[in-house]
Amino acid sequence: MTDRLPLLLTMGEPAGIGPELALMTWLRRKDFQLPPFAIVGDPAYLGQVSKHLNLDVAVTVVEPHNIISTFDQTLPVVPVELGGPVTFGLPDTINAQAVIKSIETTVDIVRQGIAKAIVTCPIQKSVLADAGFAYPGHTEFLASLAVSWPDVDAPPHPVMMLASEDLRIVPATIHIPLSMVADALTTEMLLETGQIIARALEDCFGVPMPRLRFCGLNPHAGEDGKMGNEEKDIIAPAISLLQQEGISAEGPFAADTMFHESARDKYDVAIAMYHDQALIPIKTLAFDQAVNVTLGLPFIRTSPDHGTALDIAGTGKASCASLVAAIRMADTMMPPKTT
Amino acid sequence: MTDRLPLLLTMGEPAGIGPELALMTWLRRKDFQLPPFAIVGDPAYLGQVSKHLNLDVAVTVVEPHNIISTFDQTLPVVPVELGGPVTFGLPDTINAQAVIKSIETTVDIVRQGIAKAIVTCPIQKSVLADAGFAYPGHTEFLASLAVSWPDVDAPPHPVMMLASEDLRIVPATIHIPLSMVADALTTEMLLETGQIIARALEDCFGVPMPRLRFCGLNPHAGEDGKMGNEEKDIIAPAISLLQQEGISAEGPFAADTMFHESARDKYDVAIAMYHDQALIPIKTLAFDQAVNVTLGLPFIRTSPDHGTALDIAGTGKASCASLVAAIRMADTMMPPKTT
Repeated sequence: MTDRLPLLLTMGEPAGIGPELALMTWLRRKDFQLPPFAIVGDPAYLGQVSKHLNLDVAVTVVEPHNIISTFDQTLPVVPVELGGPVTFGLPDTINAQAVIKSIETTVDIVRQGIAKAIVTCPIQKSVLADAGFAYPGHTEFLASLAVSWPDVDAPPHPVMMLASEDLRIVPATIHIPLSMVADALTTEMLLETGQIIARALEDCFGVPMPRLRFCGLNPHAGEDGKMGNEEKDIIAPAISLLQQEGISAEGPFAADTMFHESARDKYDVAIAMYHDQALIPIKTLAFDQAVNVTLGLPFIRTSPDHGTALDIAGTGKASCASLVAAIRMADTMMPPKTT
Repeated sequence: MTDRLPLLLTMGEPAGIGPELALMTWLRRKDFQLPPFAIVGDPAYLGQVSKHLNLDVAVTVVEPHNIISTFDQTLPVVPVELGGPVTFGLPDTINAQAVIKSIETTVDIVRQGIAKAIVTCPIQKSVLADAGFAYPGHTEFLASLAVSWPDVDAPPHPVMMLASEDLRIVPATIHIPLSMVADALTTEMLLETGQIIARALEDCFGVPMPRLRFCGLNPHAGEDGKMGNEEKDIIAPAISLLQQEGISAEGPFAADTMFHESARDKYDVAIAMYHDQALIPIKTLAFDQAVNVTLGLPFIRTSPDHGTALDIAGTGKASCASLVAAIRMADTMMPPKTT
């Protein structure tokens, strides 16, 4: 245990379900055999939430060095004070700076080598934007903070992977209208995405020579150009280039026959061309167990695959399954090599 | 048993896996508790395939009225002679007329009330086209044959549904490039598709007031227009019109959270906007058990959800799971009401 490092959870949006999920997760630390972790957030507010939901969680303010020794008895909190009061379900810009500071502090502690990995609770992007936050979301902000790492000169290109016990899958495009997907795909971006995935699977997941398998964009992967040419013109060339670099990449294959059990045995990670092509199979197979993993950063970052769920914040109804899975996955990962 | 009607299987492409699957399925009729059926095809050729694969299936030429009394002991075949010899894996236009005649004869017998339903084995569309067949596929041809039905004046609009024990799903568009999907969707076609589905689920599947649930087109069903407007402009209006007709229709919902077990409990049939949005969930959940059901015809038609598999035809390697499921599903269905 002596060289074991704890994990850190950011608080996320205080008016959302993040704080209650963190408390519930700590309560079930033994059931799920969770590694030691701390929350980087407001200790007084976490105490209030505990009381509100009758969770009976004792909160202890700690220095990052003392997380492991505290974790068994009480929930360790690395303090970041909120700017003002919180109403469940109603995010307020008054607390935006604290939400941002929680993320920055977490990254700082990991960079200092005192914690192993970052698990982020969901933020409310629109409220952070109203408060002047210049990043579209967590991932871009984390990429910008990565430049404080030794040997990282520019914000890296982060790649979102969804992972469960049954499937790892990367959407090559994410939050754009379906009608824009075909135009957004380029051989260059698929090549770079494939390179980042191959490296991260080897470094962080211990998969030697990971097998990448690309989905086609069109029905039946275009059926030799009868139903679209993106497979021939864009996806296949990227796969060839990856193969030339010695990366095990195959496809593009008809996406509909890639996700049943025997098909999944053939690869370590699938690359989908758009949001639903990735999210439908993983949420069908592992609805509340899917974890979001950001590849390409110089540190380990996972997050639950859900949002702030403002409509049920403060009710105790939210499931901590995905946060538990995110913590467990971060625990099994190895830090990326940055040189 | 007296008023029970048999099912009919078309032969499909003789150089594909259809004939061997039909033979294997008959051999396992007791394991799967299959209803009596006949193949409408070439008895001599079916005998040859049986011999080639050492299946030991005795074939008996029958009149349609004698299928049930024959089925227990030997495989009943309603004869349609091939035009020439068959080489496995190499479809020949010489047999195209027999493939077409098998379908026509099958429809004729069902129209006469001597058989209950049609289960079609896969055809090789390109070879039929080379032989002058004017229809893009099975479904359009069956729709054209439907005009011989009483009270059917024009070819009906057929709707393809994929069905398994876990899920029924209809793709609103099918074999078109992904980049053309958004432009292909109209409120009118979604309305008509919804009407046909609602009626067929009630008539043929005995689901009173079937619950229809529409997928969105875009990630998160567009998230209030942030990632696409088709939900507001095209899909939601179709749902409103269906509701005004007293049909239970809901959505559009984010497609990724529609297919895990508890989500599936909320509807009787899902309507997807494109091929992979429908095929990914059903093939992930029920890879070789999915059945193709054509709704909107005046008769019951199911088919296995696979093609001619020319690469393995004649080897006995093909799985009869989907054909078995197609026969079982046709057996549980009730004929559409045509008035």
